[in-house]
Amino acid sequence: MKISIIGSGNMAHFVALSFHENGHTVHQIYSRRLQNAQKLAAICQAEAVTKIEDFNPEIDALFLLVNDHAIAELAQHPHLNPFFLVHCAGSQPISLLQPTIRPCAVIWPIYSINKNQPPIHLSIPLVIESNSDKVHPTTLSLAHILSDNVTTLSFSQREKLHLSAVMSNNFINHLLNLNHSFLNKEGLNSELLKPIIKQTFLNHINANSFIPQTGPAARGDIKTITRHLQLLENHPQMHDLYKNMSEAIINYYLKQ
Amino acid sequence: MKISIIGSGNMAHFVALSFHENGHTVHQIYSRRLQNAQKLAAICQAEAVTKIEDFNPEIDALFLLVNDHAIAELAQHPHLNPFFLVHCAGSQPISLLQPTIRPCAVIWPIYSINKNQPPIHLSIPLVIESNSDKVHPTTLSLAHILSDNVTTLSFSQREKLHLSAVMSNNFINHLLNLNHSFLNKEGLNSELLKPIIKQTFLNHINANSFIPQTGPAARGDIKTITRHLQLLENHPQMHDLYKNMSEAIINYYLKQ
Repeated sequence: MKISIIGSGNMAHFVALSFHENGHTVHQIYSRRLQNAQKLAAICQAEAVTKIEDFNPEIDALFLLVNDHAIAELAQHPHLNPFFLVHCAGSQPISLLQPTIRPCAVIWPIYSINKNQPPIHLSIPLVIESNSDKVHPTTLSLAHILSDNVTTLSFSQREKLHLSAVMSNNFINHLLNLNHSFLNKEGLNSELLKPIIKQTFLNHINANSFIPQTGPAARGDIKTITRHLQLLENHPQMHDLYKNMSEAIINYYLKQ
Repeated sequence: MKISIIGSGNMAHFVALSFHENGHTVHQIYSRRLQNAQKLAAICQAEAVTKIEDFNPEIDALFLLVNDHAIAELAQHPHLNPFFLVHCAGSQPISLLQPTIRPCAVIWPIYSINKNQPPIHLSIPLVIESNSDKVHPTTLSLAHILSDNVTTLSFSQREKLHLSAVMSNNFINHLLNLNHSFLNKEGLNSELLKPIIKQTFLNHINANSFIPQTGPAARGDIKTITRHLQLLENHPQMHDLYKNMSEAIINYYLKQ
């Protein structure tokens, strides 16, 4: 298949390299900064373009891989009227792409794409949506170049998965980052925590179920919680997070 | 070495089997429920006892593997005066074991021990403390039967690691449990989230550093956060947790 791309960030790298390396064609790449477009274009033998009007419509799809808030405006550009447009933003509806005037689709990876560590196994889950049964086969073909794991879902379902991905990635990341900073500041070796972190996530990955909770909050051990909050007196953000999470666990297990 | 054990729970199983399977002797096991003591004693060729007075002092150490709040009372039992006592509670001081009258130690695994899935590689981190230089070699010998990864730390350091373990295990477990329930209630396939969960943890386990944050909260995307909170209207506990965590991330990244 033959695609062009607007954008040169993490997602643009992932899409461009997946197409190029799997024998498909990346025709043109646009970025607000020409240098960025050129850099990515060089890797996948594409042409860097500097104006939206330069896009050649003889392609299967144009990927809009820009910040969420920039998608709608780009889709309104008159030069793009004849294009099959695709965005990859989990929290954004397909309606941004004006499905009444053109074929369009959403292909959202439930994964944090980093151009320096691209997913390698074609196994990351993709959630897709298209604006008609007629264009769904093209959407599926485009998606399968990126991954073997493709699921068609409505926007309402996708939104909930996006929320869940925020919890599974951003929130856990924040907890582990604060923890890392805390151990560093206290001069403790963060390697000592790695086995229990690994255990925690393997429990959830291997079991497809609710994992029994242990620890001070689940057993209502206010004495230990109070002591931990004392230890966090000089770490106000971690203090508040510890307090909120402990209260959440107490409410969940002891007040139901 | 030769030990006896009070308790028959997860930690008692782990200690008893580690000693037995590595060619050491588990002499006697006590549990308030004789049947539980007998069951564990049978596995490691020990004797089940029903009274504290039945413990034979000709051993290297007696492990008190009971609930945190029961340790101090047991340590006051006059029959146990001549014993080398060990507890394994991360949040409890060695002083519960009355270090003025006897040799004693703490051996705390930074791991959630489950008798049905015991740690297998002798690699879980153990944090130890003993009440004198004289008994420290014995403490080290006891610990090395359970794991190769042994670190001597003060109670003040151990308390902070315990707090950190609570965050790394209990808090993340709670987030992932709520997430699992949410996906189930909404009829969504929780398998779709596993790759990003795995990615999140591997980022922290492989890097020994702060992982850059992404997502709606880190970029101050109030519109998406508000929409997610709407989606959680029928999940009040997850709603509050989502709100608290998002505020924590916003405060951390945008208001510093």
